[in-house]
Amino acid sequence: MTEFESERISTLPDATGSIGILGAGQLGRMLAASAAPLGLNAFTVDPKDAPSAARHAEHISAAFDAPEALRQLSERVDVVTYEFENIPVGALEQLLDVVDVFPGVRALEVSGDRGVEKEFFESLGVDVAPWRSVDSRRDLNAAADALGFPLILKTRQMGYDGKGQAWCDGPEDLDDAWDELGEWSLVAEGFVDFERELSIIGARTPDGQTAMFPLAENLHKDGILIESEAPAEASAETIERAHTICRKALDGLDYVGVLSIELFQDPDGTLRVNEMAPRVHNSGHWTIEGSETSQFEQHIRAVAGFSLGDTASVAPTQMLNTIGGFPDRRAVLEVPGAHLHDYQKEARPGRKIGHITVRAGDRDALNERVGRVRPLVEQTRDLG
Amino acid sequence: MTEFESERISTLPDATGSIGILGAGQLGRMLAASAAPLGLNAFTVDPKDAPSAARHAEHISAAFDAPEALRQLSERVDVVTYEFENIPVGALEQLLDVVDVFPGVRALEVSGDRGVEKEFFESLGVDVAPWRSVDSRRDLNAAADALGFPLILKTRQMGYDGKGQAWCDGPEDLDDAWDELGEWSLVAEGFVDFERELSIIGARTPDGQTAMFPLAENLHKDGILIESEAPAEASAETIERAHTICRKALDGLDYVGVLSIELFQDPDGTLRVNEMAPRVHNSGHWTIEGSETSQFEQHIRAVAGFSLGDTASVAPTQMLNTIGGFPDRRAVLEVPGAHLHDYQKEARPGRKIGHITVRAGDRDALNERVGRVRPLVEQTRDLG
Repeated sequence: MTEFESERISTLPDATGSIGILGAGQLGRMLAASAAPLGLNAFTVDPKDAPSAARHAEHISAAFDAPEALRQLSERVDVVTYEFENIPVGALEQLLDVVDVFPGVRALEVSGDRGVEKEFFESLGVDVAPWRSVDSRRDLNAAADALGFPLILKTRQMGYDGKGQAWCDGPEDLDDAWDELGEWSLVAEGFVDFERELSIIGARTPDGQTAMFPLAENLHKDGILIESEAPAEASAETIERAHTICRKALDGLDYVGVLSIELFQDPDGTLRVNEMAPRVHNSGHWTIEGSETSQFEQHIRAVAGFSLGDTASVAPTQMLNTIGGFPDRRAVLEVPGAHLHDYQKEARPGRKIGHITVRAGDRDALNERVGRVRPLVEQTRDLG
Repeated sequence: MTEFESERISTLPDATGSIGILGAGQLGRMLAASAAPLGLNAFTVDPKDAPSAARHAEHISAAFDAPEALRQLSERVDVVTYEFENIPVGALEQLLDVVDVFPGVRALEVSGDRGVEKEFFESLGVDVAPWRSVDSRRDLNAAADALGFPLILKTRQMGYDGKGQAWCDGPEDLDDAWDELGEWSLVAEGFVDFERELSIIGARTPDGQTAMFPLAENLHKDGILIESEAPAEASAETIERAHTICRKALDGLDYVGVLSIELFQDPDGTLRVNEMAPRVHNSGHWTIEGSETSQFEQHIRAVAGFSLGDTASVAPTQMLNTIGGFPDRRAVLEVPGAHLHDYQKEARPGRKIGHITVRAGDRDALNERVGRVRPLVEQTRDLG
């Protein structure tokens, strides 16, 4: 038996189909948990030995691009998906010879490079923050001249939770930013004085059916998402604009599965794409309790060839991330409508190890309940 | 490695606690799935090799009373519960020396014998159907004289889904009934011309906190539950009576966990206990989508020492069992608000292999949706 062979095969019940997931963190965990009631078994591939998703999946411990692991995976599943966008494209290409891989290579290529992603949205006629490509110190100066200050320098690839970014308030900050990030391929973004951040999460099936979840309003701290509230209060016009942006992106990428887009809303109502993620998203965790269909089930439905589920709001919800530490679960569970989601990950500063979704019949009741949960979450939060 | 040693231990993430479940069918499966987000790992014991619950639990394949398996289980968990009431009491007693076992031996003893159960409810001042104990052919004649016809002869122990029962329309049926069941210890029940069957499901914590779910109205066919609707339409008085019955039973048994009671409602409104189950129950599956807290999470909360969750109705729901065959899942998933629960069990006539819960914003919408799902379920239903 090779080191990455799963040991659980014989101990699990039969399934009507199987789904492979590259990555076995909390997103893979919640995807796998959603696959089971649909009668689908889940297999995960991830270098970790005892990842969060192993609770609900057969786990193959191996590098994402280990050819033998991918061969084993492809023999066991009908379709493969991924839980995060920093998967080597080569890994997908090996799989694509044998099974369907959704959302697919194009979605990975576009979302894996901030510059390519911005060009993609501009090609759809969708607003993004003003930006310039930066591959040299001279490019950085030119970007500063064009965009003004403050500007944000970001790596094109592999950034998440505010990592791989440098903030420049004026010309005096450019040297430090360049020293920190100059070895990478970069983009510079002009500052956008947005009023709030919204998420639009949508899904698309292989035959082009689409469905949009209600908008969520997001709150960040130190570049990390800490809370989302849904449905966000928004005009019918804003909702329609967000839907149009998401639908254009889904169709433009010939996308299959759940796509998540973070939007900045300007004071004048303009929506600009901040970034997209070709997967389920932290700002959609509220859907487990708050939507008729969760984003996790929706993604499984789309990639497994089922029709999309109803995305109607069930009740107002607020999601609070537990970061770097887990609050007293007894105290949290005393609050009516509070739903714990422990990812069973080791606590480390800045690491998302769970979330709590609070649900209530109306917004006043929701605010009262959140007011009891938030202090418990903040007490143990460690953003690192 | 002994035959019942689990092979999954090393591949699963850390938990803040662990729970043992005797029995690994669909109830164990949904209990284990509910334990995970609370940060608890689940271990199941069951003679089956690849049971339904193994999807979400560490599984130990062994007889319920295998001493070595129970020893292993008790070393790994903080508390033990069970998913069905036909567990040998001896198995629990071995565990009780080492860990807490909830709901406990008393609940098993009472629910494991129809006669003892009826005496228990009578001792609480709660109505049951008129009945007699039957241990001989002479007892049966005496019971028929006292109760009249029709009467139902039932084994005291091990009955479920209408099994271990014989219906007697008149004196001419008594011989056949006796031939079929006379080797067992029996009760005879007088016929009750009830209007409908309701379920009351409640929970109790070790310190005596209780919470009741909304009433469900049940529909049976050939002795097997086929549908439950919740919340049942019922007067405040009926609801209060049902709550009182359940609370008396919970307190009377010093119960910890979820207790389920089937009630017959007479045309004059009287509620009589049909039977109780010291566990989560098929007629409570609707709570996954329909209640703020599911019966499965509620049971885990109670036995793990958390406070009970809110039992408020989220929306009207109807649960339809899939028995003996699974409907076309693509067609079911096209109905908005339809939620699939495939237990990943092999289909056999009369075997419950899944359920579908339909949820909607109001009853009219619910009826319309159920009207689309029911024919799909009935097409493939095989009651055996």
